[in-house]
Amino acid sequence: MPPNLEVLCTGDELLGGAVSDTNTAMFARLLAPLGLQVKRTTVVGDAQADIAAALRELCARADVVLLCGGLGPTEDDRTAAAVAMVLGVPLTTDHEALSRLEARLTGLGRAVGPNNRRQANVPQGCTVLQSEVGTAPGFLVRCGGARVFVMPGVPAEAQWFVEHHVTAALREQSHGVVRKQTLRVVGLPESALDTLVAGLADGVAGASLHFRTVFPENHLTIQVRGAVAATVEDTLERLVTHAHGRLGAAVVGDDGRSLPAVLRDILKARGQTLAAAESCTGGLLQKLVTDEPGSSAVFLGGVVAYSNDVKTGLLGVPKATWMEHGAVSAPVAALMATGIREKLGATHALSITGVAGPEGGTPQKPVGTVFVGLAGPHGVETRALLLHGDRERIRMSAAMSALMWLLQVLRA
Amino acid sequence: MPPNLEVLCTGDELLGGAVSDTNTAMFARLLAPLGLQVKRTTVVGDAQADIAAALRELCARADVVLLCGGLGPTEDDRTAAAVAMVLGVPLTTDHEALSRLEARLTGLGRAVGPNNRRQANVPQGCTVLQSEVGTAPGFLVRCGGARVFVMPGVPAEAQWFVEHHVTAALREQSHGVVRKQTLRVVGLPESALDTLVAGLADGVAGASLHFRTVFPENHLTIQVRGAVAATVEDTLERLVTHAHGRLGAAVVGDDGRSLPAVLRDILKARGQTLAAAESCTGGLLQKLVTDEPGSSAVFLGGVVAYSNDVKTGLLGVPKATWMEHGAVSAPVAALMATGIREKLGATHALSITGVAGPEGGTPQKPVGTVFVGLAGPHGVETRALLLHGDRERIRMSAAMSALMWLLQVLRA
Repeated sequence: MPPNLEVLCTGDELLGGAVSDTNTAMFARLLAPLGLQVKRTTVVGDAQADIAAALRELCARADVVLLCGGLGPTEDDRTAAAVAMVLGVPLTTDHEALSRLEARLTGLGRAVGPNNRRQANVPQGCTVLQSEVGTAPGFLVRCGGARVFVMPGVPAEAQWFVEHHVTAALREQSHGVVRKQTLRVVGLPESALDTLVAGLADGVAGASLHFRTVFPENHLTIQVRGAVAATVEDTLERLVTHAHGRLGAAVVGDDGRSLPAVLRDILKARGQTLAAAESCTGGLLQKLVTDEPGSSAVFLGGVVAYSNDVKTGLLGVPKATWMEHGAVSAPVAALMATGIREKLGATHALSITGVAGPEGGTPQKPVGTVFVGLAGPHGVETRALLLHGDRERIRMSAAMSALMWLLQVLRA
Repeated sequence: MPPNLEVLCTGDELLGGAVSDTNTAMFARLLAPLGLQVKRTTVVGDAQADIAAALRELCARADVVLLCGGLGPTEDDRTAAAVAMVLGVPLTTDHEALSRLEARLTGLGRAVGPNNRRQANVPQGCTVLQSEVGTAPGFLVRCGGARVFVMPGVPAEAQWFVEHHVTAALREQSHGVVRKQTLRVVGLPESALDTLVAGLADGVAGASLHFRTVFPENHLTIQVRGAVAATVEDTLERLVTHAHGRLGAAVVGDDGRSLPAVLRDILKARGQTLAAAESCTGGLLQKLVTDEPGSSAVFLGGVVAYSNDVKTGLLGVPKATWMEHGAVSAPVAALMATGIREKLGATHALSITGVAGPEGGTPQKPVGTVFVGLAGPHGVETRALLLHGDRERIRMSAAMSALMWLLQVLRA
């Protein structure tokens, strides 16, 4: 059995609305290769009594506790005192930590005050974990049945302690290996994704499925845990192949690349180019495409035709077309796509025109009505979408739907 | 005494390294005006037994528990069952929640499967908290000495539940009044902001300053707490006025509007319009402008001139200009701005050309070199910027700097 590992974070700022605990996620990523998982995280404020109470609870049930925060030089840093209180021991000065601290501050040209010296105080009998980042040492104590690693809360410093002190100490307790892979899916609601992959991991030893919505994507993570790396990797590969079979063209990929990055790589490999003409998305599609470094190899540019006159002036959409069909219509989407494709001489061109809301909807074309155009070497097609949510969701769904359509055409 | 309020978040993803709990911080921000503070946060995984065990512990010591996560349609969503287990009651279907859920999914054109219907199951005897966002209802139960508000974990949905169900229920327990106001600042680093407002709240009873970086903005929140609303509001108003005096033109505003929204409102009031031509920002500036509802009243559109040929073809920048000066240069920025302004007949036009990286830098024009152009009724000007950070930060800084420049010109 892997050890029961819990995290305890201290700091008023983590409960006051200004910052969120990101150390838990960082610890989880660093410890996963050892087959270790975080079982629970507890966040308390700066009060010594609160830290001590939480520590007592954790030590009654956990094998390993990672305690971070409250080792700084200010008066609201009370973690060392809280640990000493729980252990019933006094604080003592660690002279090596004090020398390092003085050398570090002097090197920075800073004076060493009594507040700084307090940082070298640790519970009597602990194992001091010296620091090469920041000024405070960490320390390791046994408390109840748990080994408690105490370290600073600043993420970069906490990471250094885990990498240099904690992983080495826990490696011996590592049990088996864990491998996981994430399929990024666009265009399937989470419940449909769940249904399509239902039972995939049933009866497969050590395998589990995990779902996560990162709007507008849904992520399916397949995790396999076992004793032998080769077996675990074979099992994972087999399950990933099954999942691809069930999810088909809804999958962007399984190697961590975003949809725009996958498109960039396919277009680049083929020596093809892309252009875009956007109305309701107002530049969002082009922003997503150019978020990716190297997009200039395939993306030529485009137009944000927010007003109808711009659709005519820059894209050559006849005024009669948007007067007759409305600016939000399939004919306008088609002419926007062919217009920008011809202007820029691109291989492919995407267009979007729609009603993002909250104003502008009509009974015939309610908020969320979007037409997407795709012009390419074989002509132009349009699709009508009815998207839901607020303005931000409609715009993001429209842009991602257009990109996903292009991906499916390129892969067909 | 304000109630002892704790947060319980569930979800393997919060312990697996992929995401961090941001709901605690959001809850803290929403509850602070009621004088309520989060005392502790606990994060557990998806296992029903873990959720139940944590809930039992919290209910033994807290007055109010905000429990979020695990109400989705997939098989790893087990919060309702865990709560029912702790209370020793069965799950029952709430028919109003089921109707709302079916109406919502049908409205989205989606089938209603058994997984979806599970979301209408709540512990017998609870108070159902209907949802107008997402599909799952929330609910309120009494457990031990605590009132437990159960809601979805998706931050936008959790926020909706707190705003619509939790704050109303807790308002009666509010003690004293807290008022705060946030000044949004662009273009000053946090340390400079800190220095400029140093001492502002010194000696003012109940007043405190809070800093938060929401890249690329810095937010200064001035908070005043006291017994009498009128006194608290007078004090706050006085401090806000002082802060404006110290920060001057770096302040976007203090009423919650974003920079693009402030620009939209000024332009609309004057009957003026805006156009844009972007290179390295690839549509980001236009995306930011059109994020705001109602932007179509003032924003005509623009061009993403990612390749140099597009700068010539769509904007009329002579090839000789970018051949001689380079595409990233003041003359090209000036011609992009005047070109798009004339093409679209806009009052004002912004342009951006630069090196966003990570590739493309040279000794003369390293990554982060950006030229911004602003064309208006009185001619065209350019500014040269040297921005720092990764591709994403450089692009965002460039777009926001351009918008901030326009704001300062409009206010001058």
